[in-house]
Amino acid sequence: MSAAPASPMPGFNARLAARWRDADTLLCVGIDPEPGRYPAPLVDDPDRAFAFGKAIVDATAEYACAFKPQIAHFAAQGAEDALERLIAHVHAKHPGIAVILDAKRGDIGSTAQQYAREAFERFRADAVTANPYLGSDSLAPYLAHADKGVVVLCRTSNPGAADLQDLPVAGSDGTTRPLYQRVAEKAARDWNDNGNLSLVVGATWPEQLGEVRAIVGGDIPLLVPGIGAQGGDVQAVLQHGLNADRTGLIISSSRAILYASSGADFAEAAARAARETRDRINRHR
Amino acid sequence: MSAAPASPMPGFNARLAARWRDADTLLCVGIDPEPGRYPAPLVDDPDRAFAFGKAIVDATAEYACAFKPQIAHFAAQGAEDALERLIAHVHAKHPGIAVILDAKRGDIGSTAQQYAREAFERFRADAVTANPYLGSDSLAPYLAHADKGVVVLCRTSNPGAADLQDLPVAGSDGTTRPLYQRVAEKAARDWNDNGNLSLVVGATWPEQLGEVRAIVGGDIPLLVPGIGAQGGDVQAVLQHGLNADRTGLIISSSRAILYASSGADFAEAAARAARETRDRINRHR
Repeated sequence: MSAAPASPMPGFNARLAARWRDADTLLCVGIDPEPGRYPAPLVDDPDRAFAFGKAIVDATAEYACAFKPQIAHFAAQGAEDALERLIAHVHAKHPGIAVILDAKRGDIGSTAQQYAREAFERFRADAVTANPYLGSDSLAPYLAHADKGVVVLCRTSNPGAADLQDLPVAGSDGTTRPLYQRVAEKAARDWNDNGNLSLVVGATWPEQLGEVRAIVGGDIPLLVPGIGAQGGDVQAVLQHGLNADRTGLIISSSRAILYASSGADFAEAAARAARETRDRINRHR
Repeated sequence: MSAAPASPMPGFNARLAARWRDADTLLCVGIDPEPGRYPAPLVDDPDRAFAFGKAIVDATAEYACAFKPQIAHFAAQGAEDALERLIAHVHAKHPGIAVILDAKRGDIGSTAQQYAREAFERFRADAVTANPYLGSDSLAPYLAHADKGVVVLCRTSNPGAADLQDLPVAGSDGTTRPLYQRVAEKAARDWNDNGNLSLVVGATWPEQLGEVRAIVGGDIPLLVPGIGAQGGDVQAVLQHGLNADRTGLIISSSRAILYASSGADFAEAAARAARETRDRINRHR
């Protein structure tokens, strides 16, 4: 009898669903190392971007369904190499936890191919965030990687989100809906042939989160930043964003976990903050 | 008599206007080094991203009002260091020519600050391209650098641009206008306090270019990609996009110049293509 063929690596959405189930957590830990906020023991470490990220990852992995490093925080410091090693560390030590590279790229197709190489080949991320302003051909090079996740901005968590995303768009059916809902419609209907698309909807707008969930159905994961330092309400997020399985959300916190302490106990404090956030989420599920 | 105080470095728009006038060119040379398209003499050069960029810069500087390196083409190859040295080379050898870092970043304010550091401090670019989907606070950290240019996407050159940018947005005055025109309105009216904003409008849409010029007036430069490999019509671009001074345009060509020859004569071929493009533009001005 010949051996069965090796099964392909499960895709991002399947790995995420397995982690939601097996670790009972919807918490995503964002890794945004700000130059002026390293904890005291790492301030003089020449490899502090990696050392900080690794300590946070190892301390919080138990409570995390995903990690989300934010690339600008590495690039501003010329620390791409630290980011490469950090993601390799997650794959090696915490293989059940997917890495979402928060890059929010958006460019014409030939350039988007280079950005897809950056995210998936160079940094070996499992998913990448992307900006929809340039339309379908700017997203296609990411979406073509069926085993990778593509997390498209829909309604972002920041105050200025309303400037464009809430503009009233007239539809061919005579209805008028905000732009972010048109993005959700296109994402679910036109862009998700490989079933590997997710959407970003900020925790600071729980009602809009509910509108997006209603538009896209239960199978598209929603990445929800803004419950920590930005002040989003966890209970409202869950009420409006959960699917019928009581999952479907990647609830991201960065600064409230990373900077829970600036002292020698920063990793323990991060672990405590992550555990408490996971538990707070689960109490309201 | 004491010496007069050193005058501050003129801003991006002033330097651009000086170069339009002094060198009589509206051509911007885009530098997008694709991994599979290096000319034969550089294929085996370990520093080929820099060597190629430097050869193109030196060969085409005479005909260029700006250089526009596209960051993904460096990042996908792990060649950020080459990009840093390339931009330093432009500043050292061609100080009248501004460098626009084509990065199309867009993120919440705290992260946009890191992207601004990446563009202006790490890479020392004179201007950066940015995506407006996240609204005013995502652009503010770039725009706060009054001496730097911020080139905001408006109507991009790619086929998918229509997906979002042409959606009909209802205005409070009862009119309905495409999203890209709302972006142009906000840019000119709300976002340009420091007079350092420009807009991207693809050469592939000359009528939309005319609409944008009419909305923003003559003082906001328009960066126009798409006249080379993407097939935009130079005469139509000039007819619709020039301001009353017969300037106001940064007309960008990348692949048609970079890859004019794949042989040992690639730099001479690039110079010839750049000169011909500049002349073609000037014939229609």
